[in-house]
Amino acid sequence: MTNEPMNLSKQEDYYALHTDLYQINMMYTYWKEGIAEKNAVFECYFRSMPFQSGYAIYAGLERIIDYIENFQFTDEDIEYLRSLEIYEEEFLAYLKALKLQLTIRGVKEGELVFHNEPLLQVEGPLAQGQLVETAILNIINYQTLIATKAARIKQVCGDDFVMEFGARRAQEMDAALWGSRASYIGGFDATSNVRASKKFGIPVAGTHAHSLVQAYRDEYAAFDAYARTHKDCVFLVDTYDTLKSGVPNAIAIADKYGDKINFKGVRIDSGDMAYISKEVRKQLDAAGYTEAKIYASNDLDEDTILSLKMQHAKIDVWGVGTKLITAFDQPALGAVYKLVSIEENGEWKDTIKLSSNVEKVTTPGRKQVWRITDATDGKSEGDYITFIDEDPRKQEELLMFHPVHTYIQKTLHHFHARPLLTTIFDHGVCVYQKPSLDEIRQFAKENLDSLWGEYKRNLNPQDYPVDLSLSLWEHKRDLIAEYRQQKI
Amino acid sequence: MTNEPMNLSKQEDYYALHTDLYQINMMYTYWKEGIAEKNAVFECYFRSMPFQSGYAIYAGLERIIDYIENFQFTDEDIEYLRSLEIYEEEFLAYLKALKLQLTIRGVKEGELVFHNEPLLQVEGPLAQGQLVETAILNIINYQTLIATKAARIKQVCGDDFVMEFGARRAQEMDAALWGSRASYIGGFDATSNVRASKKFGIPVAGTHAHSLVQAYRDEYAAFDAYARTHKDCVFLVDTYDTLKSGVPNAIAIADKYGDKINFKGVRIDSGDMAYISKEVRKQLDAAGYTEAKIYASNDLDEDTILSLKMQHAKIDVWGVGTKLITAFDQPALGAVYKLVSIEENGEWKDTIKLSSNVEKVTTPGRKQVWRITDATDGKSEGDYITFIDEDPRKQEELLMFHPVHTYIQKTLHHFHARPLLTTIFDHGVCVYQKPSLDEIRQFAKENLDSLWGEYKRNLNPQDYPVDLSLSLWEHKRDLIAEYRQQKI
Repeated sequence: MTNEPMNLSKQEDYYALHTDLYQINMMYTYWKEGIAEKNAVFECYFRSMPFQSGYAIYAGLERIIDYIENFQFTDEDIEYLRSLEIYEEEFLAYLKALKLQLTIRGVKEGELVFHNEPLLQVEGPLAQGQLVETAILNIINYQTLIATKAARIKQVCGDDFVMEFGARRAQEMDAALWGSRASYIGGFDATSNVRASKKFGIPVAGTHAHSLVQAYRDEYAAFDAYARTHKDCVFLVDTYDTLKSGVPNAIAIADKYGDKINFKGVRIDSGDMAYISKEVRKQLDAAGYTEAKIYASNDLDEDTILSLKMQHAKIDVWGVGTKLITAFDQPALGAVYKLVSIEENGEWKDTIKLSSNVEKVTTPGRKQVWRITDATDGKSEGDYITFIDEDPRKQEELLMFHPVHTYIQKTLHHFHARPLLTTIFDHGVCVYQKPSLDEIRQFAKENLDSLWGEYKRNLNPQDYPVDLSLSLWEHKRDLIAEYRQQKI
Repeated sequence: MTNEPMNLSKQEDYYALHTDLYQINMMYTYWKEGIAEKNAVFECYFRSMPFQSGYAIYAGLERIIDYIENFQFTDEDIEYLRSLEIYEEEFLAYLKALKLQLTIRGVKEGELVFHNEPLLQVEGPLAQGQLVETAILNIINYQTLIATKAARIKQVCGDDFVMEFGARRAQEMDAALWGSRASYIGGFDATSNVRASKKFGIPVAGTHAHSLVQAYRDEYAAFDAYARTHKDCVFLVDTYDTLKSGVPNAIAIADKYGDKINFKGVRIDSGDMAYISKEVRKQLDAAGYTEAKIYASNDLDEDTILSLKMQHAKIDVWGVGTKLITAFDQPALGAVYKLVSIEENGEWKDTIKLSSNVEKVTTPGRKQVWRITDATDGKSEGDYITFIDEDPRKQEELLMFHPVHTYIQKTLHHFHARPLLTTIFDHGVCVYQKPSLDEIRQFAKENLDSLWGEYKRNLNPQDYPVDLSLSLWEHKRDLIAEYRQQKI
């Protein structure tokens, strides 16, 4: 324990210490006991679907690649660890020299993922796999949550243009940045976040806030000033009174400037959006601006947007902030990272964790996840988890059964099986060709298109099957029995 | 709009672009129209108490100071902005040369704060005040939320040791880092986050996870290895079976090593904590380890901890992660940043924003917030918001009345008034002596001690009075009337 803050320049603040102390304490034990280099496999998965959603969209891989590639303990990190007076010098030297040699397999960003299936598999020296747990979970937990939330929101918006407006309400700066990227993967069309646009190439959008109107103190004068200085104009019309002042002023300015500006529409940010949007539409249409769009923002999420659509609100463009960027209704995904196998004398020995909370029991062994689809129409049949060296493509028929309620089962004959885990790092070297962000977004869209509507509806979706192969299921059952016998 | 990601080295990713596009678009209008340098005042506040709490704890100032002090547009930022094809070259040159000259007044970190009172006041050139809105809100919204959540949790824990375990579930890396600091301000005693400990000097703690036990496949062997390599031992006892295996193994190891280790206790992370902790206590006591402590973690928050305490659970040390670091039950504070005054021909003209959502109406003018306490016992009477140049200390008596339900009022005679907003930056120069983190934490503790218990209880607390001075209240009323008359 220490209580003295160190004086650190920004450049020295890398991410090697972005971990929990117990990871380093366990590494120390492994190192001292001579098992730090033992091969081990950890897998990352989440136990239940976020938002009671029928699907989730995986995101976070690019940040994980960056973290792994740039991993290093700095001199200051070592100095800090020395100050804890827990570790001997030789261990600190080992950390300083550490280069990650991990083999990492993972799901591609934009892939649909489901509960209890491995999203990332980290194989390599036990101590190294242990060390990177915290950062990997931190990244996957947030980015997958937001990509999923974004997809749920986009789904109720249909072809409407949807913008991410969340930076000010995000949980600190990284969330604003990576949340913006995850939203784009989930189907959002643009962001207000300039840094995210610069870093990731996301289309950026935005015009003005209430403060512009307040700064001029006169709404007409403010719109006039904006129109003098910008070609694209979306006027925010609710600073004083949307229907009696805001929209009439916007129309007056549009009339005044004609073709000199591109009057894209008006934005409303408060009040009864269903009623107001219809009245605004009438005013715009009556003035001949039938092409001008109505933008809405104000604590929106998939439920409020759906409700507004049911009320036939005349809203064309949606700006979504707080509820998206914080995943307001469930702000944590709860992904975990578990040791599933460890090498003993050149042989893999699979491990298990038991628990009186049944959902916390792990599935042992190095695994592969297969997306099973109907060979005829390409629609999803479910996911099928096997040992890493099983290949269902070699089978004529596939028995899929629920791992708990085993009587729920089906046998497939004409199926297609696609492995979801691909090699990202091979012994520390990145071998993955990173797709562009637009390719990831398009991949997510295609994945969603191939999923049955029953899994996609926002309320009470069907449970998507995530099954174990028979041999894996039997292995888990046997290992539970072995440990129960041994320990009780 | 752009869709081409730029190839940026990490070092170039500063925070100047951590803003919404509309801020820069408004700056452009101000700059083109010649009012960018006009003096303006923005104030930041939140509209309702987070978690229906009776108080909030302010945090975020240190990060804001860092942001303001290091503010600069890089060449790459300018290149990116140029690519948007919205702004003329001269404006980009103005941005590149921009040095913030803002005068910023703010509440100290660790201060108790309440809804609808200014936490930060940004005065200076209109364009500059506009630009920094997004980052300031992003920082205050998260850090104040977490400091408040931490204080609520600490409150039910009493003198028990409480640790922040949230890194893996935080909303990306910054949240893990700054959330750890905010938790410490709110009263937490330690963190598992090594990077936060290094950066801020927070005491760090942690021993081992389930993976250590799984790596050895034998629980006794795992504890044995840990004890061989660490002086301080807290054994995690629920990998296989807490009562039949975990605790007996922990005791056996403690017996084996005696004084060679410091057997601090055992941690449980699943199961019925109330029942299990009592049984664990019995086993430890029976073995003579009456000083060994029981650590608990598993989705804890103030409600579950209170419930466990009501059930007389034998838990000594609490590890709190997900529910704290994401502020799970309300993951956004909702602070806003509003223009309250602007200089016209050398005179301040106060501004207002009306809204059909009554809580969205702003209070005009440059303000000061006074914490009013009883001069005899030092206990809080409420907060009193005045114009910046009013000083209630010069008054013999103070009329405090509810700004909406004005019949709720009291007149104080023996009162003490302490101004909450102090100068942080004076025309761009930081004039604030930053307290140490431990001083901030102690300040928060003292502030909470001086607050009546009725405001502190976690469920249904009394409403803490946040009143306006009579002259400020009348000014707001008059300005509303003026705008309503003008606009309708």
